[in-house]
Amino acid sequence: MQAQAITVSAENLLLTSGSQQALDLVARVLIEPGDVALVELPSYIGGTAALHNAGAELVGITMQEDGLDPALVAAQVARLRQLGKRVKLLYTIPNFQNPSGITLSAIKRQQLLALAVQENFLIVEDDPYGELYFDAPPPPAIKSLDCHDQVIYLASFSKILTPGLRTAWVIAPALIAERLERAKEAADLCSSMLDQAIVAECCHQGLLEKRLAYLRDFYRQRCHAMLNALSTYAPADTWWTKPTGGLFVWWELLPHCDATALLPAAVEQKITYVPGAPFFVTDAKPYSLRLAFSKESPPRIAEGIARLCTLLNSTS
Amino acid sequence: MQAQAITVSAENLLLTSGSQQALDLVARVLIEPGDVALVELPSYIGGTAALHNAGAELVGITMQEDGLDPALVAAQVARLRQLGKRVKLLYTIPNFQNPSGITLSAIKRQQLLALAVQENFLIVEDDPYGELYFDAPPPPAIKSLDCHDQVIYLASFSKILTPGLRTAWVIAPALIAERLERAKEAADLCSSMLDQAIVAECCHQGLLEKRLAYLRDFYRQRCHAMLNALSTYAPADTWWTKPTGGLFVWWELLPHCDATALLPAAVEQKITYVPGAPFFVTDAKPYSLRLAFSKESPPRIAEGIARLCTLLNSTS
Repeated sequence: MQAQAITVSAENLLLTSGSQQALDLVARVLIEPGDVALVELPSYIGGTAALHNAGAELVGITMQEDGLDPALVAAQVARLRQLGKRVKLLYTIPNFQNPSGITLSAIKRQQLLALAVQENFLIVEDDPYGELYFDAPPPPAIKSLDCHDQVIYLASFSKILTPGLRTAWVIAPALIAERLERAKEAADLCSSMLDQAIVAECCHQGLLEKRLAYLRDFYRQRCHAMLNALSTYAPADTWWTKPTGGLFVWWELLPHCDATALLPAAVEQKITYVPGAPFFVTDAKPYSLRLAFSKESPPRIAEGIARLCTLLNSTS
Repeated sequence: MQAQAITVSAENLLLTSGSQQALDLVARVLIEPGDVALVELPSYIGGTAALHNAGAELVGITMQEDGLDPALVAAQVARLRQLGKRVKLLYTIPNFQNPSGITLSAIKRQQLLALAVQENFLIVEDDPYGELYFDAPPPPAIKSLDCHDQVIYLASFSKILTPGLRTAWVIAPALIAERLERAKEAADLCSSMLDQAIVAECCHQGLLEKRLAYLRDFYRQRCHAMLNALSTYAPADTWWTKPTGGLFVWWELLPHCDATALLPAAVEQKITYVPGAPFFVTDAKPYSLRLAFSKESPPRIAEGIARLCTLLNSTS
């Protein structure tokens, strides 16, 4: 697994009940009211909500097709510093991001890490999808480059084994891992023993590797069906991402479209998606939406996209 | 089960990963910084810590042999009101309390509930041990008397089935249950599906009732061995509780004894206990300690108490 590229000792490792708990604990431990957390635009709602609930001021930075632009991040950090604010951390999902499907390029990973070291903020690297690549693995985790204890890395068995076994892990600098462990104890004492034992056995017996091979093929077929259908049917001048792994495609319709208003008509056609606006902490794009290629068969995905495009053309 | 005396509908019920998570969620949802939480002296550290972490001011009230004195609670509430403080809740473990083993009497349950209604504070009734009675069940849960949505009831399968299956439940007024559910989702999305399914199957197949019958007998024998040994060997003028269920005996030594300082010598004699001081949010009694009769056989418990008493007599 990709995560094996990260050197870990026991003092850096904490198991959590899914990555959502890790996000909640990280936010509770690190954020003091008024701290700034930099987040991607768009970003995972459970992550931004955890930071918000802990009292962080969220500052969003628009992504490019290969992830956050380090120059834009540096400019935001400088601006916030001038306002006397403390930038505590950057929250990123570098691989096949939820909701956008975007992957952060190797060079940008290095640049963002260098910036974090220079400006002394932490990077919270949330990586639930990294193993779900279709052909080639994504670039090495930011954590694997981290010589200065600047990165907290989160990963999970939810998307690669099964979500019901609430088992995820955090790799953090030792002092932060110790605080996370105390916060975990206060939150629920410990996670399910049985879930952890089953996950460990699946790893030992090689079932996880088999499952990963199956899932990569499963999602590859479905993503290709979706991207092909979009190429064939999508209204002109709309834009979508071309993920190389994960579960999601991000689609930006024409600016006058409202993805939330469109949803009931889509559901009537037995198609559903998640409107994009809630994934933005600022500068929401109401004309964006998240498609998932995680469930239906490739032909049904293609049919669904065709029906959705017919609907879009009829309402525009 | 005792808990069946409480009328519950789905909108009142939430499953949590152990009662520790329920305590953490209740505290996070209800406490605003500066709110007062009334707690028993002594009380469960995980409960008082959750309230403290959420920003509560903790005010302790000494227990009597049959639990909190409603007159003392009323006096504290009046005093705090005069200081302009808001008393948000009372946290109580009414059955075979941790750490004291004390059970709140039936009449005091009624009086405390009436006081809560009159003074408009919530009661958080934490009941992990109620089913572990030796002979007769404890008085009905305060929640079973609650006609005014004043009580949040917590119980767990940890002590009555197995602690590794992280499955507990909260019964709360609908509006509070809804807030707890949202907080639970932010904290870890959901609990282990497998743990919940196993617990449900144990209940359906009657295994829980069998297990309870076994545990009641198991702990009854061990508690009696401990109480008999204390009657025989304990230094004069020391005082201990006589639990009718649960896992714990509370022992107050002579006031010049320091239970923390004594512990290393006890451990050398292969006896251990938990010093009492950390169980107090104020007015700590350093000469108190918590004994558990949860593990060793009755003869070994009796021998352990005898050795501990020899040690106490030799150091006093």
